[in-house]
Amino acid sequence: MRILVLGGDGYLGWPTALYLSRRGHDVGVVDNFARRQYDHEMGVDSLVPISSMQRRVRTWNEVSGLTVDAFVGDLTDPVFVQDVLRRFEPEAVVHFAEQRSAPYSMIDRQHAVYTQVNNVVGTLNLLYAIADFDPSIHLVKLGTMGEYGTPNIDIEEGFIEVAHKGRTDLLPYPKQPGSFYHLSKVHDSHNIMFACRIWGLRATDLNQGIVYGQETDETAQHPDLATRFDYDGVFGTVLNRFCVQAVVGHPLTVYGSGGQTRGMLDIRDTLACVELAATNPPGVGEYRVFNQFTESFSVQQLAEMVVDAFPGSATIDHVEPPRVEKQDHYYRAAHTKLLDLGLVPHLLQAATLRSMLAVVDRFRDRVDAEAILPTVDWRRTQSTLPTAGTSVVA
Amino acid sequence: MRILVLGGDGYLGWPTALYLSRRGHDVGVVDNFARRQYDHEMGVDSLVPISSMQRRVRTWNEVSGLTVDAFVGDLTDPVFVQDVLRRFEPEAVVHFAEQRSAPYSMIDRQHAVYTQVNNVVGTLNLLYAIADFDPSIHLVKLGTMGEYGTPNIDIEEGFIEVAHKGRTDLLPYPKQPGSFYHLSKVHDSHNIMFACRIWGLRATDLNQGIVYGQETDETAQHPDLATRFDYDGVFGTVLNRFCVQAVVGHPLTVYGSGGQTRGMLDIRDTLACVELAATNPPGVGEYRVFNQFTESFSVQQLAEMVVDAFPGSATIDHVEPPRVEKQDHYYRAAHTKLLDLGLVPHLLQAATLRSMLAVVDRFRDRVDAEAILPTVDWRRTQSTLPTAGTSVVA
Repeated sequence: MRILVLGGDGYLGWPTALYLSRRGHDVGVVDNFARRQYDHEMGVDSLVPISSMQRRVRTWNEVSGLTVDAFVGDLTDPVFVQDVLRRFEPEAVVHFAEQRSAPYSMIDRQHAVYTQVNNVVGTLNLLYAIADFDPSIHLVKLGTMGEYGTPNIDIEEGFIEVAHKGRTDLLPYPKQPGSFYHLSKVHDSHNIMFACRIWGLRATDLNQGIVYGQETDETAQHPDLATRFDYDGVFGTVLNRFCVQAVVGHPLTVYGSGGQTRGMLDIRDTLACVELAATNPPGVGEYRVFNQFTESFSVQQLAEMVVDAFPGSATIDHVEPPRVEKQDHYYRAAHTKLLDLGLVPHLLQAATLRSMLAVVDRFRDRVDAEAILPTVDWRRTQSTLPTAGTSVVA
Repeated sequence: MRILVLGGDGYLGWPTALYLSRRGHDVGVVDNFARRQYDHEMGVDSLVPISSMQRRVRTWNEVSGLTVDAFVGDLTDPVFVQDVLRRFEPEAVVHFAEQRSAPYSMIDRQHAVYTQVNNVVGTLNLLYAIADFDPSIHLVKLGTMGEYGTPNIDIEEGFIEVAHKGRTDLLPYPKQPGSFYHLSKVHDSHNIMFACRIWGLRATDLNQGIVYGQETDETAQHPDLATRFDYDGVFGTVLNRFCVQAVVGHPLTVYGSGGQTRGMLDIRDTLACVELAATNPPGVGEYRVFNQFTESFSVQQLAEMVVDAFPGSATIDHVEPPRVEKQDHYYRAAHTKLLDLGLVPHLLQAATLRSMLAVVDRFRDRVDAEAILPTVDWRRTQSTLPTAGTSVVA
């Protein structure tokens, strides 16, 4: 099918585009390179070197014989969004194109406003463009498990049956997000659900867990095809950071007690989930939610797994938690809908961790130790980041 | 106490400011005149003539001997927001300053984006400014009962105890808003709750019902002090519109079956509720929600009440509903918290309706019959409004 991947130059967008291309779909990618710009702003870089989008697309064509169309532009520009839909005529749009870092959104007011406006307006423009151009286009939107927060009851997939004072209703699952970024995804979810209701759009909200890993079957075929590996305090995710810390001989920095438990998944499962969602669309007017993760781990557990998998010796340090979040809490979240569609998960094993550690080892000379520690404090309205507040206009 | 009323030139902001001033508070008003600008855009006007903000403030001083400070500026300008807090040093900020029309937000993409950006960014700027300047300032924020939609269970005040699979938690009440405007208020609520959690702010979210009425003890003292009376298809609310239709001899236009049931309140109760909320602040870090309405009516009931109260003869017409909403549904919403604080409601009686009808009659020559009917259709992404899409830059 014809699938347009928004944010197709990013950590997950790019490998998703290649995966879908190799699986026989006609793929287009759209990006405004905001993610590369954040690197410049923060003075950090992907551990694994990445090629330009133009070069990536060219190399993929040389390696696979397959073509991926590339569109450069910004979703907050409604004319661009309409134009891309008209030119590519997608059957499904996979929407990764949002600012996706919680710490980035918490740097200061400017970054909070930028994150919410960028994400919410981009998605609003997309909803209007789909409704205008072809309401049958299936929107596959990347949300986050972080939308739910950590309630003291089981997390369901988007909706929950509530019995109250002798009556019952199936209601949107209450959201308790933990950053202005996570809030932007909650805002999106509400807007998308409404657009499905009034215009008969079809949408799948993929509430994704924390993704780990860097190599996929496609990206491993050529260095030009590699995707990002972020380990810094702003864009790096927890498992990547632990692997880098182990390799460079720094203690693994666990925030607080490390009891924070989150759903996680292998990067290869992200690609499979997106294809399963895209090729099994919801009905007209249907807004559905899949919880896209395969296993839950506490931060402490992850640190211990890395210590165990690391061939040398590694230690764990408990540092002052920069976020405002519960450190010990109940966590049980449903995630059966993608399994029902046929997902066969890659579970987190020592072999996975060893391959991540090997990637880090290959690029260990590129590690910037200064970049790893948290610089953004949820309790402060202005981070101490030297560059904050000077580079993003909101 | 020192109370700053944002949106203090609007339908409710202005009479609230006068009420608080007369009750002995030190009051400041802030406005950017966006509401007056919407009139220009739509080619409509308040039925009751209103004076400029400068003249209103001057006349209030002459009539009462009391002073209200006025600040002109836009909440989407963070420097202005910080500056106003520094200059006025409020103990409470009452925030009416949002685009508040559901049909306006549904005109087209531009108006949807404008509404969400204006409302969400204004409130974000305010939250940051309060956290920076003085986190003890109590934010009294106007939300709407429309955030809840029409669930098939009782609506509670902001939170609901959910029992699920053998566990329980008190969770934010699930929201099913019915327009991009109502969605903007849901986004605000999530952002405010989070700001209270991370920065220890104190906030009261007043989920207000539909307000009716135009005269208050203060505004009735001089024609310069009058507040707006909107009856047009975009900014007019249902009871105002019915009163105008009765007076000009137009059938009362009920959307669909008229079974849509909503919480409502008298304008004088809005003023009392705001003062009760402001003078009884929540604790540090507390986000609380009051459902601010006094009675529920279906649209059909309201039409019949106006027909009964009207001294002449009036008829009811059922027209194609422009909104996507349930026409017959369960509706029972808690509203005890403001009663517990001492609210004594003005219930909707024939006398109230007769006084509204008298206001309309006084200004019947100003009625523009063309402006009354609905022009914005929820199912279309572009309204047929001749002026739409040319005048607001989003």
